Amino acid sequence: MENYKITNKLFSEKEKGSKETVFALANGYMGIRGTIEFCEPELSGTFIQGVFNKGDMSVPELVNLPDPLSINVYLINEAGLQRVNFNSCNLLDFSEELDMRRGVFLYSVSLKTENGYRVNIKSERFISWKNKHRWAAKYWINVEKFSGRILIENTINNNIYNNSMNPLDKTNHFGHFRPLNFQDGIGMVSYLTDSNKKIIQMCSTVPENFRMNRLKYKEELNRPVEILCFDCDKNREYCFTKYGVIYSDYDLEDSSPEAVEKELNFFLRNGYDKELKEHRREIEDNWDRIDIKIDGDDEVQRALRWCIFQLNSSAYKINEYSSIGAKGLHGEGYKGHVFWDTEIFMFPFFLYTNPEIAKTLLMYRYSTLPGAIKNAFETGYKGARFPWESEREGIEVTPKWGMSYKGEKVRILTGDHEYHIIADIALSIYHYYRATLDNDFMMRYGAEILFQTGIFWNSRLQYNDSMDRYEIKNVMGPDEFHEEVDNNVYTNFLARWNLKYSAYIYFWMKRKNIRVFRELTDKIKLFPSEVDGWREKIEKIYIPRDPKSKVIEQFEGYFKLKEYEITKHDENGMPLWPDDLDTDELNNTTLLKQPDLLMLMYLMPEQFTFEEMKENYDFYERRTMHKSSLSPSIHCLLSISVHEYDHSYEYFKKTLLTDLYDNQGNSALGIHAASTGGAWLAAVMGFGRFYIDKDDMLNFDPWLPEKWNSLSYKIIWRGNPMEIEITHEKLRIKPLKESIFFKYTEKIFEATVGESKEVKIL
Amino acid sequence: MENYKITNKLFSEKEKGSKETVFALANGYMGIRGTIEFCEPELSGTFIQGVFNKGDMSVPELVNLPDPLSINVYLINEAGLQRVNFNSCNLLDFSEELDMRRGVFLYSVSLKTENGYRVNIKSERFISWKNKHRWAAKYWINVEKFSGRILIENTINNNIYNNSMNPLDKTNHFGHFRPLNFQDGIGMVSYLTDSNKKIIQMCSTVPENFRMNRLKYKEELNRPVEILCFDCDKNREYCFTKYGVIYSDYDLEDSSPEAVEKELNFFLRNGYDKELKEHRREIEDNWDRIDIKIDGDDEVQRALRWCIFQLNSSAYKINEYSSIGAKGLHGEGYKGHVFWDTEIFMFPFFLYTNPEIAKTLLMYRYSTLPGAIKNAFETGYKGARFPWESEREGIEVTPKWGMSYKGEKVRILTGDHEYHIIADIALSIYHYYRATLDNDFMMRYGAEILFQTGIFWNSRLQYNDSMDRYEIKNVMGPDEFHEEVDNNVYTNFLARWNLKYSAYIYFWMKRKNIRVFRELTDKIKLFPSEVDGWREKIEKIYIPRDPKSKVIEQFEGYFKLKEYEITKHDENGMPLWPDDLDTDELNNTTLLKQPDLLMLMYLMPEQFTFEEMKENYDFYERRTMHKSSLSPSIHCLLSISVHEYDHSYEYFKKTLLTDLYDNQGNSALGIHAASTGGAWLAAVMGFGRFYIDKDDMLNFDPWLPEKWNSLSYKIIWRGNPMEIEITHEKLRIKPLKESIFFKYTEKIFEATVGESKEVKIL
Repeated sequence: MENYKITNKLFSEKEKGSKETVFALANGYMGIRGTIEFCEPELSGTFIQGVFNKGDMSVPELVNLPDPLSINVYLINEAGLQRVNFNSCNLLDFSEELDMRRGVFLYSVSLKTENGYRVNIKSERFISWKNKHRWAAKYWINVEKFSGRILIENTINNNIYNNSMNPLDKTNHFGHFRPLNFQDGIGMVSYLTDSNKKIIQMCSTVPENFRMNRLKYKEELNRPVEILCFDCDKNREYCFTKYGVIYSDYDLEDSSPEAVEKELNFFLRNGYDKELKEHRREIEDNWDRIDIKIDGDDEVQRALRWCIFQLNSSAYKINEYSSIGAKGLHGEGYKGHVFWDTEIFMFPFFLYTNPEIAKTLLMYRYSTLPGAIKNAFETGYKGARFPWESEREGIEVTPKWGMSYKGEKVRILTGDHEYHIIADIALSIYHYYRATLDNDFMMRYGAEILFQTGIFWNSRLQYNDSMDRYEIKNVMGPDEFHEEVDNNVYTNFLARWNLKYSAYIYFWMKRKNIRVFRELTDKIKLFPSEVDGWREKIEKIYIPRDPKSKVIEQFEGYFKLKEYEITKHDENGMPLWPDDLDTDELNNTTLLKQPDLLMLMYLMPEQFTFEEMKENYDFYERRTMHKSSLSPSIHCLLSISVHEYDHSYEYFKKTLLTDLYDNQGNSALGIHAASTGGAWLAAVMGFGRFYIDKDDMLNFDPWLPEKWNSLSYKIIWRGNPMEIEITHEKLRIKPLKESIFFKYTEKIFEATVGESKEVKIL
Repeated sequence: MENYKITNKLFSEKEKGSKETVFALANGYMGIRGTIEFCEPELSGTFIQGVFNKGDMSVPELVNLPDPLSINVYLINEAGLQRVNFNSCNLLDFSEELDMRRGVFLYSVSLKTENGYRVNIKSERFISWKNKHRWAAKYWINVEKFSGRILIENTINNNIYNNSMNPLDKTNHFGHFRPLNFQDGIGMVSYLTDSNKKIIQMCSTVPENFRMNRLKYKEELNRPVEILCFDCDKNREYCFTKYGVIYSDYDLEDSSPEAVEKELNFFLRNGYDKELKEHRREIEDNWDRIDIKIDGDDEVQRALRWCIFQLNSSAYKINEYSSIGAKGLHGEGYKGHVFWDTEIFMFPFFLYTNPEIAKTLLMYRYSTLPGAIKNAFETGYKGARFPWESEREGIEVTPKWGMSYKGEKVRILTGDHEYHIIADIALSIYHYYRATLDNDFMMRYGAEILFQTGIFWNSRLQYNDSMDRYEIKNVMGPDEFHEEVDNNVYTNFLARWNLKYSAYIYFWMKRKNIRVFRELTDKIKLFPSEVDGWREKIEKIYIPRDPKSKVIEQFEGYFKLKEYEITKHDENGMPLWPDDLDTDELNNTTLLKQPDLLMLMYLMPEQFTFEEMKENYDFYERRTMHKSSLSPSIHCLLSISVHEYDHSYEYFKKTLLTDLYDNQGNSALGIHAASTGGAWLAAVMGFGRFYIDKDDMLNFDPWLPEKWNSLSYKIIWRGNPMEIEITHEKLRIKPLKESIFFKYTEKIFEATVGESKEVKIL
């Protein structure tokens, strides 16, 4: 199985943090960063999806839990006690690998101790995709020419902080800790400061091919420490396994220490190999759905697989109280908050490969409706105002203040003004329903979100008397360089669409099931007069669009801003700031952080002509600084749409390598999950050019970079999985469950179930 | 002022621990190891003399206190947050210095941050010799070409353990911590687990040439953290000072947080420069008493000064509840316990340079008499059995068990069998009284110790019916390779001497002051019959001494042991184990760890002829492995006595460089305080050959290594300070308070007060 491995053979202090992210493992329930037990981590990280705590911070953050990997190894012989780690020893050899086919992180290090012994350590770690609370790490230790005793010090390290890199924000979210000592290992109960809810961690260390004794159990600043030891013969390899389980009070299961110990015992009885086998079977099933094959471009192939593997690792189909944070389960960045990134950049991947998880992501929004309603109420509106940054409850948790580089407080306005998230969520419901025809979801959950967001927009629209039109003033569009603008096209367009679709579903539901319709509209007090208001306003929402020019003004007054065009790029092809620019004045220039109008064109391609898209692409692309990791993937997609193929491959690589090359410089804080989703979008909906047209017809219009021999992927459309293979000559579609019709260059073809329909590329 | 500085310009991970010891500062009350704030310490260490705690350990240990030096510096500018420390930056330049004339530790480091800024930091630190609870550190920071903000994170780090290098023994001696936040800084109250007694630490950080704000105060796992910040201009140097105070419940002063805060405020008001000036004045006074000048050998001069500086730093003349641990206040080694090292190796230095401190050291023993009496009672004897290892109470605290390199428990027998400590203490009282004629001390304290030790020996002696003699079986002499022997000459000889001197003082006191005599003998129930017993036994104590051979058998049966002679040495001239030796069998060989009989000859030179000394030196020196740092100094002294001058200088250098070159490999655990005392002994009583003969006459019989031009030192004899200067040609004695008689080569000379008496060296 080729190109399923990410490897790194160069240990670098500078890249340590980003590598910990790249090599992190997650299973949607929890994530553990790819730290090396024998090396001081840059940022150790253990997270449970949805476990937030505010503590002393201004807003809640995804809690960095006590580190269960903590292990120290010591050699003892006549020469005394020698610690085996990167600090005390010389590093002779290093390699680490993420084997995405097996779902394991492996590393191998050779260290030379102070007294000159060569210690070879290999480790393999996985977090079970089968039993989401379980993780295990296996170690092989061989000390060349050494005989003596080896001590293993095992703990669950509670000296862990969120934001540990920044002294101002560094915080430990636990009020107290209860160490646990039991027959087969150690554990810890950690109590969150806000709620006093418990996190229970337990682990047990088992020798595989030798005998090991527990010399001592003790507690250090409330953490449990056990010391194990064994006698070491010259040149023999010793193998032992650490089994761990993690539960929280939020889990449905009983989370008493006794219950958790029982679960650990089940795990121990199952054993490492069997658990790994079950885990691998799950992973295989997943690869079977999600894999994308690119023939002829190994680096891109591996990087793309890394993106979809990590994105797929970030979601969990059972727990409806969680979604995917902007940094996955891979780091603390953005405090684990959920942004529009989830719906716009990650959701399509799940929708077309694993619709159950796509539904879970929407269910998270449904479960946070009460919070969204509260947000609207508290800011003077009606309906549901989904927060720009969301945690468990759906309350707006965007920090109000950040810190400038001078240490001065700076007001953060995204949470106040980025209303578009509300329509972004509504749009995902549209896509979900269209791709699944899941009536049950729409009736029970989707419609309620659509109605509440419709009510919100209706209350948010501002009537301009003199122009007899509705406007939305003082907003921020996706482009965050312009913080307080009026009539942002993206926002107004999607708000209008939201109202339209909400109204459509209102009447659809009324026709479909009058009883359920009545129950819902009664419950949320949605009267016909409200929907009449939507319909009236839809007609009058102002969408600034100069009929003479094809270039659309991003918001009112944008064309009057100080004009800049990007002319210089760095060695990686990323734009450089114009020389004469004062970055405090970005708000007053035409430079963009990330696509705004182009984002709209990507989302609503049928609303724009090819010429419009092309001219707008040409105009805005030259003004976009790509200071967001969301930017390159959308530019890749658009460049294909407008046939600016010269750009496409470069934007694709930037998307793929965001974390692998740490090209935003902050991968240490977690994966750029939107970028991983963007990578899937660019591959499948960009190069693969799969899209659904206004008639709900499947369309394929692929374009491949010259270097590639073929591109293949799978999608599921309305329960019908299909295989797509694209070469420079042929397009092949093979539906697996029922025959389908599809379009290529305006022509309709039929693909019979189980057979490959081959179409010649024109 | 030359040769008062110890410098190191090479930063080495491997030597970090021993350098932290070499550059440690202490003032007798407290000690702080020479850690560099910006570098992860090998072993951070903050100690208060006499503050012990047992906790989970088998015996109490000198507690490693929370680290008040803890400080982190961050740069913030457009490039983000950069931490300034050895881990995150490249080390460009490093130097550290102990300026013994000023009593300060200084270092200077240049670090290159991730973003390429060069940060130059200088620091100066002292622990006040004037106000024993005060310490301060001054920092100068300059960041080249950087403008932005600098954050300073200040804490008192409670994540500190004793024995942190050894996972089995690693222990935090505090049950809980109370962080303190007050107007000018932070503090912490730490509660010892055994007694719940408090340690209170407070510190305040004050900018010297700029303005600094406190951004935040917070608590992390019960430690106080304050974050200070200032705006940094390009290339300017910023200077700030951290003032600290430390108190414990054992101190006589009020140790409430309020009282401590008041004391800190006094310190702040006094200011760094004034405090340093007062501190320096104390240090000057001390140098004036203790300095030894060697002309012509700079390395030896500096090393010798380091020894006497650190030894002098370890004692405190006010607190009578403390003495000097085997590792000073400079590390955790030997758990801070007090051994015979204090009386035999360190005491003479204080006796002849600062008799008040010598008295304090004896007062410590007096204060522990109740513990010593308890030890005797519990082991089946009478009187006072001073413990081999002693802490605050005088209870025997030698660990019963150690751990072999295989992790197996090994019985430690020193605490059971090294009885000689009892007579070693008695001998110090003799020396003290002879050198001071301090009748008050002898009457009130000394006599009681002598009586109780007399009673002890009387109860310990075993009558051998068949030989009609008293024996002492099953003991360990100073040489710890032979653990359970009978009639060790050193022990028997000193026990006899102890009984003799106790009896002498008994009658002396009776004559001198019958009332005080009666009070004391009544109090301790010392009846004439007991003293009669002493006198009878003195005659019959068996001292194995073959009249035919001048080589004395170290203990009964020693000559029958398996014979080894040392024939090979390592590159440093230290003996190597004979090839065919099994180190488990040391007990059965003639090899010695350290001098035993030679030790006796050093202590009681007038009891042996020159020929006896010479033959015994020749015999035992060849069998001594010097596996104790106590060994080289005594061999230096003896080699001069027996005119084996070839050895003398080498043994002297080994003594001096024990810690500076870490030649025992364990200096990281603290100074070898006995070796520092041994250095003084070797210089003054070896090369300087100052000794008091049986008629209490001052004697000088110097011998100088060829390299040296002169050796000068000061001593105080019966309140009369005198200056001694020795060259290869002349001996000059200048008494400062009254005229004296002294002997050189059996001739008596008179030195008139204030004048140098010059005698030609023969």
